[in-house]
Amino acid sequence: MLPEKLRTELHKMFPPDRFYTDPVDCYAYAYDNSRKIFPPDAVLFPLTAEDVKHAVVLCNYHRVPLIPRGRGTGTAGGSLPEVGGIALSMERMENIISIDRANRVIVAEPGVLNQAVQDAAKPHGFFWPPDPSSAMFSTIGGNIATGAGGPHAVKYGTTREHVLGLKAITGAGDCITTGCYTTKGVVGYDLTRLLIGSEGTLAVITEATLKLTALPSAIAGITAHFQDLMGCTAAIVKIMALPQLPSALEFLDAGSLNLIRNRFPDMLPTDTQAMLMIEVDGSRNDITDAVSAILAACQTDSLIHAGQAENTASLWQARKALSPLLREIAPKKINEDVVVPVDALPQFLEGLTQLSARYQLPNVNFGHAGNGNIHVNLLINPDDTSEVARAECCLDEIFDLVIKLRGTLSGEHGVGSEKRAFVSKEIDRVTLDLMRNIKRLFDPNDILNPGKLFPK
Amino acid sequence: MLPEKLRTELHKMFPPDRFYTDPVDCYAYAYDNSRKIFPPDAVLFPLTAEDVKHAVVLCNYHRVPLIPRGRGTGTAGGSLPEVGGIALSMERMENIISIDRANRVIVAEPGVLNQAVQDAAKPHGFFWPPDPSSAMFSTIGGNIATGAGGPHAVKYGTTREHVLGLKAITGAGDCITTGCYTTKGVVGYDLTRLLIGSEGTLAVITEATLKLTALPSAIAGITAHFQDLMGCTAAIVKIMALPQLPSALEFLDAGSLNLIRNRFPDMLPTDTQAMLMIEVDGSRNDITDAVSAILAACQTDSLIHAGQAENTASLWQARKALSPLLREIAPKKINEDVVVPVDALPQFLEGLTQLSARYQLPNVNFGHAGNGNIHVNLLINPDDTSEVARAECCLDEIFDLVIKLRGTLSGEHGVGSEKRAFVSKEIDRVTLDLMRNIKRLFDPNDILNPGKLFPK
Repeated sequence: MLPEKLRTELHKMFPPDRFYTDPVDCYAYAYDNSRKIFPPDAVLFPLTAEDVKHAVVLCNYHRVPLIPRGRGTGTAGGSLPEVGGIALSMERMENIISIDRANRVIVAEPGVLNQAVQDAAKPHGFFWPPDPSSAMFSTIGGNIATGAGGPHAVKYGTTREHVLGLKAITGAGDCITTGCYTTKGVVGYDLTRLLIGSEGTLAVITEATLKLTALPSAIAGITAHFQDLMGCTAAIVKIMALPQLPSALEFLDAGSLNLIRNRFPDMLPTDTQAMLMIEVDGSRNDITDAVSAILAACQTDSLIHAGQAENTASLWQARKALSPLLREIAPKKINEDVVVPVDALPQFLEGLTQLSARYQLPNVNFGHAGNGNIHVNLLINPDDTSEVARAECCLDEIFDLVIKLRGTLSGEHGVGSEKRAFVSKEIDRVTLDLMRNIKRLFDPNDILNPGKLFPK
Repeated sequence: MLPEKLRTELHKMFPPDRFYTDPVDCYAYAYDNSRKIFPPDAVLFPLTAEDVKHAVVLCNYHRVPLIPRGRGTGTAGGSLPEVGGIALSMERMENIISIDRANRVIVAEPGVLNQAVQDAAKPHGFFWPPDPSSAMFSTIGGNIATGAGGPHAVKYGTTREHVLGLKAITGAGDCITTGCYTTKGVVGYDLTRLLIGSEGTLAVITEATLKLTALPSAIAGITAHFQDLMGCTAAIVKIMALPQLPSALEFLDAGSLNLIRNRFPDMLPTDTQAMLMIEVDGSRNDITDAVSAILAACQTDSLIHAGQAENTASLWQARKALSPLLREIAPKKINEDVVVPVDALPQFLEGLTQLSARYQLPNVNFGHAGNGNIHVNLLINPDDTSEVARAECCLDEIFDLVIKLRGTLSGEHGVGSEKRAFVSKEIDRVTLDLMRNIKRLFDPNDILNPGKLFPK
């Protein structure tokens, strides 16, 4: 419960439509796409950096948690108000401040949707490369806080490569300005990248300077169907050894394909056991060359068919059908976002098959194979305690395998609350302690998104 | 002078050829390319991370400054032992630990030369994009510590975009491991980028995981000659508005061209007052298209001639002649590395002309125009106190102009000792205080490169 004095002060400062305290109103801010529920004691909607600063200062004074959130599309529980406190919804700071065509820069408030940035950039011939599958609904503030990626990261990189500077309010209530407005700049420490991926634990982003990229002149899609997993992963390794990087290289395993087949019987050939959806972009000539090279790289004994997709929309049809289907059949699936070096993918996916068999847990694996980034989904019945216990052991072994193969526990979803128990598998104690001290420096009273990102 | 006890301990730990205390031996480590001289009290040559850790621990105990350095090619004085102490020369940690073709990764010790990385990558069809003009002689540790750029940054970005992870010893003597081995990864705070560009003030880098890029299949060069500065800067803005980014876009002003003409009378047409050297890379077809588009963008009233260079080596001939000539005629030139947004280049260069006239200081300006990154050289006689005083005022006004145009005080050389007096023009007090606190966290006794990067 909020201290009465804090409640009174916030009521004085914010009109009722920007400060919710009624539990019914607050409930919509109790969850994210991790689908866990922790109702906040209040929800605050800042419109300006000043509003954010006021909230941070008051929450410091009263030692009340403040949990920044965009649109709640995160899957790692990063925006859950686990210990109560105030949900700081950035969704109404949604102005695009400037579009600078000559310098390829958009300056925007954190609540602007990723899609709104794309819409603003497109008429000028640009796009902003980070493209999480939530792009239509997720905010750039959330994208930045999580270091969002997406299918095009294989060619264009993730959020970290596409932000020039930030304005933010630290947990101590200080307004800081990081980075610069130009594509080069090395004055002072790189606080921009320190905030990117910090999941709202260090500072609340109030403005972002985004670096735009020219839209490719053409795009082509390829689908490749394989008889078995190993033939498919061999093709992935061969494709990623080509000099031309594909602009997307998505992988679906047999479990994913069966899921789609159950709902859309005619969408996929019956004998496909693993599938790649590949996109290349650039000039028309480059695309022609890249398509030939990729089709050649797909030629393994296991290949059933590889060919150019008639249109790129149809290319993504199967991939897009997948997430809603997964949620439908397994509302409590455990969705993990891990990365291994590309040439370790065969070994990793083989290991997953063995673990799935050993623990008798159906799993569905797909993802951004060009980065070695696989979304592992364990389909469990949450009411079956034995299954839940097996899943926990299985997950632990999956993460051990990832680390053994020199991978990382999260490629784009982040740590949030879902993965903090496993962070020590990847980051040693000394480095983690240093990160904890950085957290203390930015947020001495631990009011910003407390408890997230670090192991307990 | 070193405390006797420290000297004895280091003599016990390191053989004489890895621990210099004779002032004659130490003198070679007293300077860098800022051409200021501060002899260290000793020079230490670690071979392993353990050696570095021992040195850091001992220097902490005795509160003696430890100044990491690569090969001393920095121009901002970042590796000068200003207050004495021990120069930590990383040049003998020069092993390439692994070359991983499938995953496009090289792991290397910090003393490996940039050129050695290029030589190791090339047979596999790769390169490492950071390309400071010192690449033949500078180390990757130094490149990382300064966040080095170079002409190809306009297309490929700077060091920050091409390092996946680091091992380092903090100023507190802790071994930390940052980042990961894969192209995606968002677990924990981004300490990799925090160390990149931190100029040896936070930690000593002992190992770097470098991300490689495929070599382009072809390269072409264009030279463009203009009757005046304004026509040339207009062309720069037009070229940078094209969807195809050039792989380099270098600019030489009239002062630069005259310098070259004095020594090489036949190298340049007599009427050229500003010149662009442009490189494009990619597939042959793309290059043909890009060359046409760039030649069209060069068509201003001021254009004398623009055309494809017969070979790319000849393209760089004039540019490469410049730096040695500059040093020869003005050994004490003030070389500043500033950045403005590309569309502010006309206004910035016009402003420089006015300042040069007002302060009666000849200047020579050239640089990486595609990033808006200009190297401003004030040619002064260091024995003329009035000229030196005028140069100081002029420099101050140049930096004010840069900031007014939303630029940054350094694009690639860093702050070191040369620019720290001006940092407060760019970074506000609150943000600087936070950076200072980060420094304290990593290096509580301020032994690592003390006094650098921050205003006094």
